[in-house]
Amino acid sequence: MPALQFELTHTQQHSKARAGKITTDHGEIETPIFMPVGTVGSVKAVTQQQLYNDVHAQIILGNTYHLYLRPGLEVLEAAGGLHKFNGWHRPILTDSGGYQVFSLAANRKINEEGVMFQSHIDGGKHLFTPEKVMDIERTIGADIMMAFDECPPYPSEYKYAKDSMELTHRWLDRCFTHFNATPSKYGYTQNLFPIVQGGTYKDLRTASCQYIASKDATGNAIGGLSVGEPMEMMYEFTALCCEELPENKPRYLMGVGTPWNILECIDLGIDMFDCVMPTRNGRNGMLFTTRGVINIKNLKWAKDFSVIDNQLPNEVSQYYSKAYMRHLFVANEILGLQLASIHNLAFYLWLVKEARKHILQDCFTSWKNDVVPVLQQRL
Amino acid sequence: MPALQFELTHTQQHSKARAGKITTDHGEIETPIFMPVGTVGSVKAVTQQQLYNDVHAQIILGNTYHLYLRPGLEVLEAAGGLHKFNGWHRPILTDSGGYQVFSLAANRKINEEGVMFQSHIDGGKHLFTPEKVMDIERTIGADIMMAFDECPPYPSEYKYAKDSMELTHRWLDRCFTHFNATPSKYGYTQNLFPIVQGGTYKDLRTASCQYIASKDATGNAIGGLSVGEPMEMMYEFTALCCEELPENKPRYLMGVGTPWNILECIDLGIDMFDCVMPTRNGRNGMLFTTRGVINIKNLKWAKDFSVIDNQLPNEVSQYYSKAYMRHLFVANEILGLQLASIHNLAFYLWLVKEARKHILQDCFTSWKNDVVPVLQQRL
Ligand SMILES: [Zn+2]
Ligand SMILES: [Zn+2]
Repeated sequence: MPALQFELTHTQQHSKARAGKITTDHGEIETPIFMPVGTVGSVKAVTQQQLYNDVHAQIILGNTYHLYLRPGLEVLEAAGGLHKFNGWHRPILTDSGGYQVFSLAANRKINEEGVMFQSHIDGGKHLFTPEKVMDIERTIGADIMMAFDECPPYPSEYKYAKDSMELTHRWLDRCFTHFNATPSKYGYTQNLFPIVQGGTYKDLRTASCQYIASKDATGNAIGGLSVGEPMEMMYEFTALCCEELPENKPRYLMGVGTPWNILECIDLGIDMFDCVMPTRNGRNGMLFTTRGVINIKNLKWAKDFSVIDNQLPNEVSQYYSKAYMRHLFVANEILGLQLASIHNLAFYLWLVKEARKHILQDCFTSWKNDVVPVLQQRL
Repeated sequence: MPALQFELTHTQQHSKARAGKITTDHGEIETPIFMPVGTVGSVKAVTQQQLYNDVHAQIILGNTYHLYLRPGLEVLEAAGGLHKFNGWHRPILTDSGGYQVFSLAANRKINEEGVMFQSHIDGGKHLFTPEKVMDIERTIGADIMMAFDECPPYPSEYKYAKDSMELTHRWLDRCFTHFNATPSKYGYTQNLFPIVQGGTYKDLRTASCQYIASKDATGNAIGGLSVGEPMEMMYEFTALCCEELPENKPRYLMGVGTPWNILECIDLGIDMFDCVMPTRNGRNGMLFTTRGVINIKNLKWAKDFSVIDNQLPNEVSQYYSKAYMRHLFVANEILGLQLASIHNLAFYLWLVKEARKHILQDCFTSWKNDVVPVLQQRL
């Protein structure tokens, strides 16, 4: 089976926005794309049928840290990988676990070898090394595996950011060595994406991009952004990375973001996004719509019997009213969490599909400039 | 529009099990039927699409007490009734709120007029009278409205049960008087079902059945059973009521029960059932299947990659594995609650459909005797 293919269908005139197509052994992905986050093998509160039919997801994410702890590698291997375990038969990307090790786990100790940490669930001790993480992601069976990296917090001192970046680069070498020395586990091709780090220092980011690009991987990711820095700084460093990273490979900006963040970063040359925002904020009653942002718990929606969003091509958004959604949230009904998650994810997938359509028509930037102020409105 | 019609298609030989068809202005219901409970206008953790397409529900229940408190009558009336509010366009039955007033509300005071109580949500004071409850159920827009009754606890002294029954009968007169004096609210016909009470005293139950039957309502319900009495006693009183209540009207046994309770009571002549068990127990990880009962949290399912139940004609039961379901419950994923609820409800609807098929073939009782021990097994 061939490695992941990227076809650059069209690059927008007067901007770096591009439309493409990724081909994996689990099917095609039209870019730009948003990837719903399926933390422990389930996109929270959404069934796989709803992901296919209502959300129109093309690829989902799994979190290596969570899947390693639960259900664990023994179960995942016995199942024949995550696709067979959870019944999602399209592409899956796994992060490297690094981010969760640093944000969730306890008593972590980092050294050249890797990271020792204690599980946030039962306090059990574990060691993640680049080699170990490659083995885990192989066993999960991700179509796209992310390299094991350290993501420095914002702000970080120059020296910290530089040392961390250099460690990430040495780990990257070990990731590729181990990746290349091990076979795909379940008969389809697995791919390894390296991750640019370097904090918010231009020379470090440039150096990291060049180092990452030198690996000639099938795709490249940008990490360490959207971690608390000002939005303009996030755009500035995204633009810098897009300048440096090769054009003929997909570019994945990790953990971004709001609908308007996504549109701005598409304009800068990003192809792939993931974020917990549509599901997490949805579970808190925040609905993203084509007319702006709704806090569905507000009293103003109590008798608004119009549907959530009649502009979206999915059943949930066109079926349930704002008044009913508000009622479900006020009454703490689980159904509210489900419908809000489906709606928000469908909105994100609609958004990147619309973006793609306008890129192909060479009018993305003007469309984006028109639509962002509308999407940002608080209704 | 005509009132509810009941066609008695076939009565089983050598038993009282019967197959029928109820026609309402929101469509037909094949009996025997199980009605999922949609407490506040949502069957917990199940979308209306899943109720139609996966569960194959034909009628759902709404709880008057809950709907009256949230979203409240003003919203329901502005919506044009519950069907329009929640998007469930098939028949809806509402209970009278009596049960919740006695089990959930605080500081209740009962007298001839009705019941004063405080909301379990905000402590607000409310008065339910037979007339008020008729108005509320009219406003909710139920196709089948239940009469306002008092349900005595088990065990109750003879005098308490008798006084309570007589109060329920006087309230029933007031319910019918007010029901007959008020129009259907939204253009379709609403029906009022009276409820047999009388505790666990045969003479009281017989008298109550005769009183209820004298109302010549379009259907009749049996209340006050499955409230803690031994199972054999529940069957005995169900049989007694079925003997007394008219054959040409649907008989609804309220709040029952397990799959085997339902099959036994079908054999005694019951046509309609409701219970929170499939959804509530499902949310606790108990799955009813064609092979027996599963506690999906048990370690034994960790690597069982067979589907939940390959005998059931719905996608969820045939798609997700026991190992994946166990993982979702162990990891506290909302998706587990959703899938368990859909599966269990689909199982209940499959069960009554199978029962109907065997009734029409005159082999219900022997099929029931074969299948009950299988369904009761702990796997
Ligand atoms: Zn355009
Ligand atoms: Zn048969």
